[in-house]
Amino acid sequence: MGKKQPQAEESAPVDVDSAAVRLHATNHGKIATALKVPLETKADLSLAYTPGVAAVCKEIAADPAKAKELTIKRNTIGIITDGSAVLGLGNIGGLAALPVMEGKAALFKRFADVDAFPICLNTQDTEEIIKTILAIAPVFGGINLEDIAAPRCFEIEARLKAMLDIPVMHDDQHGTAVVVLAALINAFKVRELERNQARIVISGAGAAGTAVADLLITYGCSDITLVDSQGIITSERAELTDEKKRLAGSTNPRKTQGGLAEALVGADVFIGVSKAGLLTQDMIKSMRPGPVVFALANPVPEIMPDLALEAGALVVATGRSDFPNQINNVLAFPGIFRGALDNGVTKITDLMFLNAAQNLASLVENPAAGEILPSLFDADVVLAVATAIKA
Amino acid sequence: MGKKQPQAEESAPVDVDSAAVRLHATNHGKIATALKVPLETKADLSLAYTPGVAAVCKEIAADPAKAKELTIKRNTIGIITDGSAVLGLGNIGGLAALPVMEGKAALFKRFADVDAFPICLNTQDTEEIIKTILAIAPVFGGINLEDIAAPRCFEIEARLKAMLDIPVMHDDQHGTAVVVLAALINAFKVRELERNQARIVISGAGAAGTAVADLLITYGCSDITLVDSQGIITSERAELTDEKKRLAGSTNPRKTQGGLAEALVGADVFIGVSKAGLLTQDMIKSMRPGPVVFALANPVPEIMPDLALEAGALVVATGRSDFPNQINNVLAFPGIFRGALDNGVTKITDLMFLNAAQNLASLVENPAAGEILPSLFDADVVLAVATAIKA
Repeated sequence: MGKKQPQAEESAPVDVDSAAVRLHATNHGKIATALKVPLETKADLSLAYTPGVAAVCKEIAADPAKAKELTIKRNTIGIITDGSAVLGLGNIGGLAALPVMEGKAALFKRFADVDAFPICLNTQDTEEIIKTILAIAPVFGGINLEDIAAPRCFEIEARLKAMLDIPVMHDDQHGTAVVVLAALINAFKVRELERNQARIVISGAGAAGTAVADLLITYGCSDITLVDSQGIITSERAELTDEKKRLAGSTNPRKTQGGLAEALVGADVFIGVSKAGLLTQDMIKSMRPGPVVFALANPVPEIMPDLALEAGALVVATGRSDFPNQINNVLAFPGIFRGALDNGVTKITDLMFLNAAQNLASLVENPAAGEILPSLFDADVVLAVATAIKA
Repeated sequence: MGKKQPQAEESAPVDVDSAAVRLHATNHGKIATALKVPLETKADLSLAYTPGVAAVCKEIAADPAKAKELTIKRNTIGIITDGSAVLGLGNIGGLAALPVMEGKAALFKRFADVDAFPICLNTQDTEEIIKTILAIAPVFGGINLEDIAAPRCFEIEARLKAMLDIPVMHDDQHGTAVVVLAALINAFKVRELERNQARIVISGAGAAGTAVADLLITYGCSDITLVDSQGIITSERAELTDEKKRLAGSTNPRKTQGGLAEALVGADVFIGVSKAGLLTQDMIKSMRPGPVVFALANPVPEIMPDLALEAGALVVATGRSDFPNQINNVLAFPGIFRGALDNGVTKITDLMFLNAAQNLASLVENPAAGEILPSLFDADVVLAVATAIKA
């Protein structure tokens, strides 16, 4: 088992913010185009461009499926956002979200050799977003929706999945859910909990909270209570969105009323995908002894790890790289699309996500309080996840 | 002066088509993503991605103009097509056009270090094309419209130019016009013709023919006759598009009636952006002695160079790499966007195109019948063109 008091693992630059701005200003962003073919002679040009390229176009015109063999569609993902729910920054719009999307494109390349291109939309209208993505889909082998606010994100993902013949995934939902489940599987081992007995409270019922609840239910967790800013989600609440209404039927088995404090009394697991500082030490003390606390709000978690441990938490995870147990989508999305592209998967299912989470969890041979997930830099991560994404 | 009988300059592969298909199948297309920043440690990730990236987003949210400094918008062009007028292949649709667009992206990188990404549209509706491009514009520092059929291409370009704050150019129009004018400037020197006296016939009044006519008029050519598939364009014709109507007013000064044969009698210059085989030896013989013949239909020109020379042409150019005097947009578009990006140009004007053509022409110190343009691989080409694209 890891040591009980996690500290920052490596010293961050004195001022991460200004160092980050400097890095971006020096390089004018983070990705560039690279050539896969030589262009040094007229003969090279005659194959890569005219006249030879016409033959390649004709092959695809005759059989569109050949685009996956003859073009970048084979290995290219569109990372598409409307900038409406970016990190902890909220609705900053498409253009201002570009550094995050470039970052994801860079991570796709670094961790899974997937070529990804960021598309930052100038609209936040559901119909326009869907129409735009349908219009630009041909070049892409998959669509990674990113940082689109709930509940719009659910409709956009569902309709695109139905209309496109390439995989579509909203990473804030499913990437998060896969990594949370992987972490939880190992936390269960550390805490010696059974999936069908653990009492789990999820704080936050947006894109991430909803998808985490769904995947945990698929995994076999049977006692989940979902809490949003208005309190515990119950069928009695009038103002619920479709997704919350659906989840109200399959969560909160003891019909608890109230807010986060009430939901947590006697619970084993807290999963926060909500807001900085929502979880107090008193709430942790009201849980069953030795609880699991995933405080994933970014960049400031629902409770800082040292406070959570002091209040009795046994396993603590955050979204941050400067504490142990970082729950970071980077463990999931590169491998998910690597697998989808390599295995010709056009619809990624919950069962695939479940298998991906289990494969990811199994990379940690001896889970401990300070080690419930593999490192981002573990070279086995991508393959473990990719292997699960197959029909 | 170059030798009078041009032959294929270098032996092409026995079967260019199958070699091209093989090249594309082996590499799954021609471009990939490359990283501009390191992603090897947690510290690297904290600057390129969370948490540091949030500070970069906030800078842009506060001042959108900073996107050009802090993101790939600084150096990234969208190459956008609806696949309606691709090479000589015609309307093959967006997906089948992808190999050409990838090719252009590769050429942008190779010749001007511009990062470009191909967007192949799933629509050929003018309004939908415009809406889609407006919706995805934020990531791009410029828009290269490509292989969009006339007359749709004119409206799309004009409206996007008016609505976007980044440069928009339809390359089939203006890239072609710049290189044709550069070649013509040097052909005039070889033939000892004056721009305001030369009688010029343009065969083809689509995107390229229209733009060539406009740029030649801007340059000071005053005797241009435009011929389309229905014959000489005159104000009397009822069915003309807006662009042809406009050009009918400023061309055909002698009010010649008829078709290509009638237009060419006594002319000095033939510029073909039309169809294979349209120009006969008899037509060339009807021109003034020692005419200039640009037979630019691709891949098969309006007349083959050996036949044109045999009929008395003094200077012959084609779009092909296997004959001398290749008139290829690659001489123009990389430098045009390199200049626009570097010089902060948001609207590229005809005067800039004119200067670009003159700069390009001036790279050939001693123009000769077999050498009216610099080589595609001449390292001075990009800068000569880019220098002209400034306010």
